[in-house]
Amino acid sequence: MSRATNVAVLGAGSWGTTVASLAARNVDTLVWSRRSDTVEQINREHLNDMYLKGLTLNSRLRATASLEEAVHNCDVLVVGVPSHGFREMLRAVAPQLRPWVPVVSLAKGLEQSSRQRMTQIIHQELPGHPAGLLAGPNIAREVLQGMAAAAVLAMPDREIARALRPVFSSSLFRVYTNLDVIGCELGGPLKNVIAIAAGICDGLELGRNARAALVTRGLAEIMRMGVAMGGRSETFAGLAGLGDLVLTCTGVLSRNRHVGQALGAGRTIEEATAGVVAEGVRTTLAACALAEAAGIEMPIARQMRAVLHEGKPPRAALDELMLRSLRRE
Amino acid sequence: MSRATNVAVLGAGSWGTTVASLAARNVDTLVWSRRSDTVEQINREHLNDMYLKGLTLNSRLRATASLEEAVHNCDVLVVGVPSHGFREMLRAVAPQLRPWVPVVSLAKGLEQSSRQRMTQIIHQELPGHPAGLLAGPNIAREVLQGMAAAAVLAMPDREIARALRPVFSSSLFRVYTNLDVIGCELGGPLKNVIAIAAGICDGLELGRNARAALVTRGLAEIMRMGVAMGGRSETFAGLAGLGDLVLTCTGVLSRNRHVGQALGAGRTIEEATAGVVAEGVRTTLAACALAEAAGIEMPIARQMRAVLHEGKPPRAALDELMLRSLRRE
Repeated sequence: MSRATNVAVLGAGSWGTTVASLAARNVDTLVWSRRSDTVEQINREHLNDMYLKGLTLNSRLRATASLEEAVHNCDVLVVGVPSHGFREMLRAVAPQLRPWVPVVSLAKGLEQSSRQRMTQIIHQELPGHPAGLLAGPNIAREVLQGMAAAAVLAMPDREIARALRPVFSSSLFRVYTNLDVIGCELGGPLKNVIAIAAGICDGLELGRNARAALVTRGLAEIMRMGVAMGGRSETFAGLAGLGDLVLTCTGVLSRNRHVGQALGAGRTIEEATAGVVAEGVRTTLAACALAEAAGIEMPIARQMRAVLHEGKPPRAALDELMLRSLRRE
Repeated sequence: MSRATNVAVLGAGSWGTTVASLAARNVDTLVWSRRSDTVEQINREHLNDMYLKGLTLNSRLRATASLEEAVHNCDVLVVGVPSHGFREMLRAVAPQLRPWVPVVSLAKGLEQSSRQRMTQIIHQELPGHPAGLLAGPNIAREVLQGMAAAAVLAMPDREIARALRPVFSSSLFRVYTNLDVIGCELGGPLKNVIAIAAGICDGLELGRNARAALVTRGLAEIMRMGVAMGGRSETFAGLAGLGDLVLTCTGVLSRNRHVGQALGAGRTIEEATAGVVAEGVRTTLAACALAEAAGIEMPIARQMRAVLHEGKPPRAALDELMLRSLRRE
C-alpha cells in the first residue's frame, strides 16, 4: 500500500491475538481488549497468558483497552469477537472509523436472532466499508509457534484483497485470496455443527470409520446449504470449507468437538458447555432455521439441534444418522 | 437374488477376510488363501491371527487353499489381493469362472506397468463379466468388531448393483451403490499418495494446520486427476474419495501414512517400506505418469515421486509444497 498502514484488531482471544501478532510483523498493529490485565501483559511481556499461555507475541504488537485509540487511526479493522457480540462491537466503533476502511471478520458463527453472516452485519452497521473475512484450518497456537499454515482472505473486491494480503501473510502463514465471501464465511460456522456431531461420535466411541463417514456427509450437507445460500461449491472443497472441517473434526480437540465429546460421554449440556464459547451450539439453531426456510435437508444439523436444544439422547441421534435407509450415495 | 448365492473371496488379508466374514452373515462364502495354516485357522477357530489377531470371524465363513474349489461354484467373485498380483490371480481363475459372474475388486492401487485400474484389468482378463468394486473409509478391524461403517459398491449396472448390495450390507455396515466405477476406483489409489505426504508432514512434526491444508489440496489434486480420467467430481467428495482420504490421513496410522511418517522421521525408503505392502509407493509412479500424459498438475504426487523414487529429502519436498507462491485459492 502507498503509505504506512495501521491495523486494529478488536478482541484479544486466542485467534484475535494471533492474527494481531502476525500483522504486527508486517505493519503497525494495535489489539484491543476490554481486560486491562491482558493489555498490560501484551505491552510489557509480549504474552497473553489468558488465551495463549507460554507463547511469545511479536514484540512490535501493542495493545490498548481504549476502543477509540484502537479505531480512530486504523486503516484496516479486524474484528475478532464472537458472533454474539459482533454487532454491538461494530456499533461501538462506528463513530470512530474512517470512511472506506476494510473490515475483516474472524468470527465463525451466525447471529442467532437474525441468522445473518458477520459480513452482512458489517454492511448493516458500517455501510460503505468493504467487508470480508480471514478463514481456514488454523489452530492459533500452532500458527503463533511459527508452524506452517494456510488461510483464505475473502473480500468481494479483487484489488482490496490483493492489497490486504501482505498485511497478514508471511512465508509460514500462506494467505490465499478468494472473492466468494459467502462461501468462505459459511464454511466455518457450518463445520462447527458437524464438529459437535464428530465429538459425539468420539464420546460414544463409535470409531474412525463412522467419523470419516460423518465428516464426508457433513461436507455434503455444508455444500448443499452453502450453495443454496449463494456460495460456490468449489469454496466448500477448499481451505475454508473442507480444510477447516478436517482440522476441527480430527486431531487436537476443538472447542465444538469437545462439547460433542462430553455429551457423547454422558455429560449434560450444561456440563459440556460450561465455561466454553462453542459457536456451534448457537449456530445449530440458526443453520436449521435457514435450512428449513430454504427447503434444504441438513440431517446432521437437525439431529444436533435435537441433542443440544431438545434433550434428545446423543446415542439416539447418532443411531438415526448412521442407520439411514440404504440408497445410492 | 432368486436362489442361494455363493461368494468366493480371493485373498485372506485383513480386508479380504473382513469382507468375507461380512458376506458370510448373508450368503454362503468361501475365502481362498494360499497359506494352509490360515485356511486351517479360519475353518477350525474362526480366526485369522496373521492379519486380524484376536478378532472372531463369522462362524459360517469357510476357507480353502484350492482356487478351483473357491471359484468353480461361485456366483460372485471378490478379489482381495494387492494390485501387483491382481492380473495374475484373474488369469489363474479364468478357466473356472462361470459366465456372467460379477467380479468385485477390493484393491486400492493401479497396475504399475500398464497404469490401469483393477476393473480395466478385469475387463481384459475376464471379458463378459460385470466389473466393480467395494470402497470407502473402512478400517478392517473396526468393521469386524461390529463398529458402524459405510462403504460404496460401485458397479456399472444399476440392477446388478442393487442385487449385490445385500451380499455385503448389514445394519452396521451400510453399503451405498454408485454407478461411477471410474471415480470410486480412483479415490482409493490416489488418496494413498496423499496419505504418504500426510505421513511425512506428521514425521516432520509440521502440525495439524499444515496437514489439514495438505489434505485439502490433496482432494483438489485427486479431483482434478479423477475428473480428467472420467470420474465424476461428486464421487471424489463422497465416501470413496474424501471419506477414505480423511480416514487415511488422520487418526489410526494407515500403512501408507506410516511409510510417510517413517520417512519424515529420518528413516530411509528401505527402512520405511520393510515388510509393508503400501500400495501408494507404486501408485505414485503410475499416477504421475498418467497425470503427465493427461497434462494434469499433481504437485503433491510429483513431490512424493521425488521422495520415494528419486532420493529427494522429505523436508525439501514438503517445503516446496508449503511455500508455493501466493495466489488465489
